[in-house]
Amino acid sequence: MQTLLLDSEAVAANAPMDRVVPALESAFAAYERGDAQMPAKSYIELPEYNGDFRSMPAYMDAGDWDAAGVKWVNVHPDNEKKYDLPTVMGTMIYSDPENAFPLAIMDGTELTTRRTGAAAAVATDYLAVEGATSLGIVGAGVQAYTQLEAIAEVRPIETVVISDVDEERVAAFVDAFEDRFDVLGGSTAEAADCDVLSTVTPVREPIVSLEDLGEHTHVNAMGADAEGKQELESAVLQEAKLVIDDYEQCTHSGEVNVPWNEGLLGDDDIYGEIGEIVVGEQPGRTAADGVTVFDSTGLAIQDVATARVVYEHADENDNGTPFDLLGIGNRE
Amino acid sequence: MQTLLLDSEAVAANAPMDRVVPALESAFAAYERGDAQMPAKSYIELPEYNGDFRSMPAYMDAGDWDAAGVKWVNVHPDNEKKYDLPTVMGTMIYSDPENAFPLAIMDGTELTTRRTGAAAAVATDYLAVEGATSLGIVGAGVQAYTQLEAIAEVRPIETVVISDVDEERVAAFVDAFEDRFDVLGGSTAEAADCDVLSTVTPVREPIVSLEDLGEHTHVNAMGADAEGKQELESAVLQEAKLVIDDYEQCTHSGEVNVPWNEGLLGDDDIYGEIGEIVVGEQPGRTAADGVTVFDSTGLAIQDVATARVVYEHADENDNGTPFDLLGIGNRE
Repeated sequence: MQTLLLDSEAVAANAPMDRVVPALESAFAAYERGDAQMPAKSYIELPEYNGDFRSMPAYMDAGDWDAAGVKWVNVHPDNEKKYDLPTVMGTMIYSDPENAFPLAIMDGTELTTRRTGAAAAVATDYLAVEGATSLGIVGAGVQAYTQLEAIAEVRPIETVVISDVDEERVAAFVDAFEDRFDVLGGSTAEAADCDVLSTVTPVREPIVSLEDLGEHTHVNAMGADAEGKQELESAVLQEAKLVIDDYEQCTHSGEVNVPWNEGLLGDDDIYGEIGEIVVGEQPGRTAADGVTVFDSTGLAIQDVATARVVYEHADENDNGTPFDLLGIGNRE
Repeated sequence: MQTLLLDSEAVAANAPMDRVVPALESAFAAYERGDAQMPAKSYIELPEYNGDFRSMPAYMDAGDWDAAGVKWVNVHPDNEKKYDLPTVMGTMIYSDPENAFPLAIMDGTELTTRRTGAAAAVATDYLAVEGATSLGIVGAGVQAYTQLEAIAEVRPIETVVISDVDEERVAAFVDAFEDRFDVLGGSTAEAADCDVLSTVTPVREPIVSLEDLGEHTHVNAMGADAEGKQELESAVLQEAKLVIDDYEQCTHSGEVNVPWNEGLLGDDDIYGEIGEIVVGEQPGRTAADGVTVFDSTGLAIQDVATARVVYEHADENDNGTPFDLLGIGNRE
């Protein structure tokens, strides 16, 4: 019995969005039904290195499949400058819940990018207007790519407006997608006027105002992942139909955390968790809705659900590198 | 930059006890000094599979080196019968604390066995009589081997008494060590009469009585790892100089947990934590001491300290299998 090793390329190749998006939908539903275990993230704080580690174990039962694992991930903002390494790196151990065998060990960085795109797609599917054809993206980093790939699975996207202060990044993004979409660089306001907007920036001061947005724009607010971060003006959050992924995480470190702590937002402003909409407890977009917002912080069950897709797809296609880590290769 | 993969054989080959034992001594000292971070283990409980997962992240700073990582480990008691797999399997991710790069991924099962032996050796070094030449071991499973290997590093062991209800296991153990020691199978009482005794069994009813023990025997009680388990009669724990690895873990699931919960043992019966002895806050064995006991539950910092030894030793000797898990092999 061997453990399958999947590097970043293998993760990308074995996480097709038409499988990851439904897996995430199942994950949100399982969480809502109480069929998930997600202990609070454990933090190791290393102020001497200006960094931290987080351990994210999880289990989820989707009914016809289940999945378990742990993601070990860090945030070291000085890495790029000091070590030519990414700020965030992840490693994922994906295990069989039935007997705990480590089925796969995979790059958790690429995994995170893809599950983040897929989470936005699930929210877009329930909250964007039906015939949405235009997508704006603010922030042209790695996350921008998977936003487009995933959202194009759930809506007939034709036009993409990509906005970033870095012109090189914009050009690279246009280059990557111009054969499949009508992609052009634009201002934040131009991006925000699309049917769907995804914000994937690390900003601490809001960059999207209520006036920028179209009348029925659905916004995926993906960037805020720590206290003090905010991409949308508080007025957007106050006016919109506001959906979150998890109450604890969002009010602590999601898009809503700043206005929440300032008392500008409260329980009454939150429409519900995405899981409630997925299982049908709450309706998604209705004819009466204007702007909708999804505040995504990222849940550990998204990682295990995506890891399962990657492992199964790789196993079916003989991808990855088998390795007898536990020295029990003679058993089967 | 590549991640070093170390399977069970590589872990065994790169964890020489003359390096692991001092590393564990440093780990206990760091913990005592407050130079360790060890968030509570996170549990995933899977009653439908009669199993669980535990996530054990840790960081420790020994002064001239530090280490970080996470061990993902399970307990699935039906594994042997149902899947021909071990009850307990572990996977360890060992990371550079400075930039969080995953330096190594290794078999955590072999790692656990070795760090458990080394923990007993540290305790033996501080608590056994100086010239201890005889070692008794009750339980001839995998843990027995590393008990002997590690304890022989700190005392001039000549005679070994191995005791187990399974005669085949006894024979295999004798066979493995008879060229280096005077090893023979014996009763529990014969093993307990040695200068040092290690108990490494999964029993729930005590098997070692006070009368069995020599006047100055030091006992490493390694087996109890869950509520309800106990290897030594409560009278032993009441009479002995009793040293533990961690107050929370030991009173919850260590050797002392049963008499503790029955009110037969209390704070006054505990001499101290092993870290206090290692840093010199409390003396180890003194001339006045009779029987001493070390209650070991196993700490996450033991895993990261041992993982560092394994990684460094493998790196020095070009052992292991480099793998570009994160897809950043072109950086260095």
